[in-house]
Amino acid sequence: MRPSGRAPDQMRELRFEPAFTKHAEGCCLVSFGDTRVLVTASVEDRVPPFLRGKGQGWVTAEYGMLPRATHTRGNREAAKGKQSGRTQEIQRLIGRSLRAVVDLTKLGERQVIVDCDVIQADGGTRTAAISGAWVALRIAIDKLLAAGSLAADPIISQVAAVSCGIYEGNPVLDLDYIEDSSAHSDGNFVLTGDGNIVEAQLTAEGATFDEESLLRLLRLARMGCDQIFRAQLKAAGQ
Amino acid sequence: MRPSGRAPDQMRELRFEPAFTKHAEGCCLVSFGDTRVLVTASVEDRVPPFLRGKGQGWVTAEYGMLPRATHTRGNREAAKGKQSGRTQEIQRLIGRSLRAVVDLTKLGERQVIVDCDVIQADGGTRTAAISGAWVALRIAIDKLLAAGSLAADPIISQVAAVSCGIYEGNPVLDLDYIEDSSAHSDGNFVLTGDGNIVEAQLTAEGATFDEESLLRLLRLARMGCDQIFRAQLKAAGQ
Amino acid sequence: MRPSGRAPDQMRELRFEPAFTKHAEGCCLVSFGDTRVLVTASVEDRVPPFLRGKGQGWVTAEYGMLPRATHTRGNREAAKGKQSGRTQEIQRLIGRSLRAVVDLTKLGERQVIVDCDVIQADGGTRTAAISGAWVALRIAIDKLLAAGSLAADPIISQVAAVSCGIYEGNPVLDLDYIEDSSAHSDGNFVLTGDGNIVEAQLTAEGATFDEESLLRLLRLARMGCDQIFRAQLKAAGQ
Amino acid sequence: MRPSGRAPDQMRELRFEPAFTKHAEGCCLVSFGDTRVLVTASVEDRVPPFLRGKGQGWVTAEYGMLPRATHTRGNREAAKGKQSGRTQEIQRLIGRSLRAVVDLTKLGERQVIVDCDVIQADGGTRTAAISGAWVALRIAIDKLLAAGSLAADPIISQVAAVSCGIYEGNPVLDLDYIEDSSAHSDGNFVLTGDGNIVEAQLTAEGATFDEESLLRLLRLARMGCDQIFRAQLKAAGQ
Amino acid sequence: MRPSGRAPDQMRELRFEPAFTKHAEGCCLVSFGDTRVLVTASVEDRVPPFLRGKGQGWVTAEYGMLPRATHTRGNREAAKGKQSGRTQEIQRLIGRSLRAVVDLTKLGERQVIVDCDVIQADGGTRTAAISGAWVALRIAIDKLLAAGSLAADPIISQVAAVSCGIYEGNPVLDLDYIEDSSAHSDGNFVLTGDGNIVEAQLTAEGATFDEESLLRLLRLARMGCDQIFRAQLKAAGQ
Amino acid sequence: MRPSGRAPDQMRELRFEPAFTKHAEGCCLVSFGDTRVLVTASVEDRVPPFLRGKGQGWVTAEYGMLPRATHTRGNREAAKGKQSGRTQEIQRLIGRSLRAVVDLTKLGERQVIVDCDVIQADGGTRTAAISGAWVALRIAIDKLLAAGSLAADPIISQVAAVSCGIYEGNPVLDLDYIEDSSAHSDGNFVLTGDGNIVEAQLTAEGATFDEESLLRLLRLARMGCDQIFRAQLKAAGQ
Repeated sequence: MRPSGRAPDQMRELRFEPAFTKHAEGCCLVSFGDTRVLVTASVEDRVPPFLRGKGQGWVTAEYGMLPRATHTRGNREAAKGKQSGRTQEIQRLIGRSLRAVVDLTKLGERQVIVDCDVIQADGGTRTAAISGAWVALRIAIDKLLAAGSLAADPIISQVAAVSCGIYEGNPVLDLDYIEDSSAHSDGNFVLTGDGNIVEAQLTAEGATFDEESLLRLLRLARMGCDQIFRAQLKAAGQ
Repeated sequence: MRPSGRAPDQMRELRFEPAFTKHAEGCCLVSFGDTRVLVTASVEDRVPPFLRGKGQGWVTAEYGMLPRATHTRGNREAAKGKQSGRTQEIQRLIGRSLRAVVDLTKLGERQVIVDCDVIQADGGTRTAAISGAWVALRIAIDKLLAAGSLAADPIISQVAAVSCGIYEGNPVLDLDYIEDSSAHSDGNFVLTGDGNIVEAQLTAEGATFDEESLLRLLRLARMGCDQIFRAQLKAAGQ
Repeated sequence: MRPSGRAPDQMRELRFEPAFTKHAEGCCLVSFGDTRVLVTASVEDRVPPFLRGKGQGWVTAEYGMLPRATHTRGNREAAKGKQSGRTQEIQRLIGRSLRAVVDLTKLGERQVIVDCDVIQADGGTRTAAISGAWVALRIAIDKLLAAGSLAADPIISQVAAVSCGIYEGNPVLDLDYIEDSSAHSDGNFVLTGDGNIVEAQLTAEGATFDEESLLRLLRLARMGCDQIFRAQLKAAGQ
Repeated sequence: MRPSGRAPDQMRELRFEPAFTKHAEGCCLVSFGDTRVLVTASVEDRVPPFLRGKGQGWVTAEYGMLPRATHTRGNREAAKGKQSGRTQEIQRLIGRSLRAVVDLTKLGERQVIVDCDVIQADGGTRTAAISGAWVALRIAIDKLLAAGSLAADPIISQVAAVSCGIYEGNPVLDLDYIEDSSAHSDGNFVLTGDGNIVEAQLTAEGATFDEESLLRLLRLARMGCDQIFRAQLKAAGQ
Repeated sequence: MRPSGRAPDQMRELRFEPAFTKHAEGCCLVSFGDTRVLVTASVEDRVPPFLRGKGQGWVTAEYGMLPRATHTRGNREAAKGKQSGRTQEIQRLIGRSLRAVVDLTKLGERQVIVDCDVIQADGGTRTAAISGAWVALRIAIDKLLAAGSLAADPIISQVAAVSCGIYEGNPVLDLDYIEDSSAHSDGNFVLTGDGNIVEAQLTAEGATFDEESLLRLLRLARMGCDQIFRAQLKAAGQ
Repeated sequence: MRPSGRAPDQMRELRFEPAFTKHAEGCCLVSFGDTRVLVTASVEDRVPPFLRGKGQGWVTAEYGMLPRATHTRGNREAAKGKQSGRTQEIQRLIGRSLRAVVDLTKLGERQVIVDCDVIQADGGTRTAAISGAWVALRIAIDKLLAAGSLAADPIISQVAAVSCGIYEGNPVLDLDYIEDSSAHSDGNFVLTGDGNIVEAQLTAEGATFDEESLLRLLRLARMGCDQIFRAQLKAAGQ
């Protein structure tokens, strides 16, 4: 029995609210239950130094958490003067996940910076961020297409992410904070719209897991991502 | 004529949405028109080192702006590794403004940290932050009172803030971004519920101003703050 | 009765010693009583990146305090690895104050960096710094004019600053450290030679103040600045 | 055909040289072909603040790369003033991997800090580091056991790691630098001596991969780790 | 012929102005010609962590240079966020030099922090700093002795420093900036009042030097230090 | 009697192992007894900004110590976010020592960065580093000469370094950690192949020393360096 009463393969309520803020080329407030992440996609007409003059674009991500997004207040990274290892790990994951579904040469010499800021945390902030990031990116790219700034759509496929784990001996989908805190093995799967794996990260701090568990978690992740893919399309007006 | 069509003494639409997030003891999403600031008040049962054992509490504030809260994306302070002078100036102002209306000895050995994070910026983020901070603080203190953790209410008065400036020769209230960018002299007034001045900051980068202008701006500020005071009370359920 | 025995509207002894050091284009050791600030103005033939190619110049300021300028030793900011919020607030104020009286287009593509280093502190370091900065700037600009590097004088007016506050219920001018420590409301006024206001900053951490107090403090500030203006002219050899 | 001429399931030459340096409680210079990592395990009689008084120990890791461990010189992280996201990601992974096979309560209030410094890099530095770290840890723990400082062995199992990837369409084991640079999907597997998974990280920046590929890579990893497990035991004198 | 017209063994004009500022326990503005360093000695009733409870004191130094102490403005170390290698090298040298003539056990559990801030630089700032530091320290210790806070004088001997170098082939004493810039081998000698060597640092970036030169420079240094010793005593009122 | 049983003028066992790693243009693992330093010389086809377009090259050095190179683990400088004063002092010394024997104009617009990383410390890491650095530099330059990239050999002479000190009243050569910890006066001499002095640094924290001691230490240093010079030539294949 999950603390929330959900079935093992049941996602939390999904919400994608595009245009929550007005300045960014793409924006989406994504909610996986009580986990809420504000995602913006900013288009810039320049690329990072290592790509200058190579005729291709770049997609990158930054991640942050408001100090009181969590049960007890965390210190502000800007005040501490550095981003934690966890923050850097997550923002690198988001960036890689997005680049896996973008044809960077079709993007031209442009950079899209996707900012994912956690407004409220209840487990799964990185998977919500990736899933919302695709929506914000899709909206931003659609604006470029509509404006004639892009000749062809650089987005190859959808991308979504969800966490799975073994909670009290049972494989469950989309862990919330209570489950996440006590699960000894869990993972994050990043999948494409056509069913392939972009990233799989499984970690067992307590009990290790075997090959069968890995496959069962992957199967759960597919179910979750299918649901996310549908919600993404609707939110992005496709 | 103001770009927004507002009258010189007309505030933008004010909104205070308490409980926008769930973890903090006090929370309020404050909007001055398109300027939106998420404020949380976190209560901690300890005080900063310089106050330990002195039998009094502390109220302090931190301020941040999401990278794409603005027209063009700003760099993330956590990534740059330091807070700008502007950020520090603003968070010091918010902290002083709140402490001016709190009896710190009645707070006991507790600290309230108020986080003000700008979700969307359109001028006046610091005044919106101060005004919303009072609401978040009021809600957090009310919880402590209701729980019997405080014997007496440490909040002495309301506090609110608003900007005023000379825009195209005319004194106007609550400048938005367009007005703020071209106004050469403007100021921020922080007032208490009983009509006194907590802080007044006037700056003239272009045309300097005289005593009469100062008084006219102060009069506008009073009008604006009166409106804010009423909205604060309603939002805090008083 | 003021601790120093001064009358309420009496400034401390003012001293401007130009050429205290020899390398800078402009230099002035300014004293407001025991508060002593060494100011240098350095002229550089380049502007900050955001102004390149715009055909105008820039004036900016930096502020520091020697570790033992104060009663008890403070930590060296260079050793701590960052400037405090207070330091940044002050140096931003000095820069804005100077720019308010300089026509930057007449300065050409040049930058003047004004360094204000507090040798000894006894209250009012920022107002002494602003007042001395004008003298150092005036001397530096005069050298450029004498050398034919500037076609016209970019300095529009004098600028000076002084603090005022309510000390034991009475409005007083130019607070020293003892007064500053116990005054609950005080402010800094930055005025131009023709009597206008460049900056006004009033703060009440303890008792708030009303409109009448604001005006009385402003009147005191005018009296103080008039005295500073005369001393500046003499020091700058005008 | 692999650039090195190895068979798809062939590891590079493995070497574990214990006692390469003399000060640390445990030490091992590990080589996976030309990738060489110096690992030391330092035992300290104190735990990090968050574990004080909880009657358990801690195992953590730090990772670094000498500036010229690579083909072209990289900047020294100590000179840049911060560790890269990559460095932090790797040292977190090493720490988690070790903790998965240590019973921290049997360790007592002690901390083991494992330093992994890459002397020469040719792909797979993190997997070599984890594999060598177990040897250094084993040696350090054996010293504590021999000295009677520990009542029971806190090490539950061996742990080893190896990378696998799809290189030119074929799944291969233990990628070297050339393979790593052009492989579009690869992963790192951390396995325990009894065949379970501690961590699995798969990444596809270019072509994504399917479930079958994941399983084939896992199978290769098992083959590689079995070889590493035997070499570890021999090096640690078991 | 030296640029200044001085004889090879001639020091620049020496000046020690005690009590240039009023807050520090010991203070001295020292001038070696146009090189001017403000030195303060601050006495604190605590020692650094590594000496707590060991029944002895500590003497340490910090060094800084005002941005425009030099011909062209240098960046402010507090703004850059770190002290240069040169700064750290010099402050470590000053601290060691002072500790060589202080009996730290007689100092009790006290720390004296000596701040040396260069107001104007013209070569030899570190030697002027060391020489002035002794005066500031002497004055601070005399106050402790006069107040009965110290039972016995912890200062064992005087200490002074001077630079020497080979300028255009000739050994010269107390190099100014012009000489320092073109001398290819020069050194700093720190000597005690009884003629012994505390520190000797000789550097040859261009032409190396032989044993005879080393001895001739040492002999010049003795002559210079004798003169400094007399001036120190007079300034410290001995 | 020295703790190691060595004669006063006896060096520890010297070893220079070239090509310990493969990527760098020059490499040498140098051992002075148990002190082992891995030195690499990296050649880059660009110079630092201050030398651009001046038709000359540059040689610089960086120094680091692995956290457990020492008896007790030291904190990693990359994790602390800054290099210590000691580190900076040493790397500046290594750089100056090398530049003293290189004709930078013959190097062309190239930079050689010499990285010295201490693998194991037992006293004298900086002198071992300098001595090994010459070997790595020699090898790197020989490659440039062999490839025809340099017209003439920019290396003017050999350079080597060794420490000397007064241990229990007797002058001894090449101090190990035990001697170094208790010696109150010691020094480092950097000498050229033709017997001249590049750097001499003598420090007396405890007992100061006289002119005769200085000369005796210098004589010991010559004996030590002669031995190092022979070993360097052999290692560099000259």
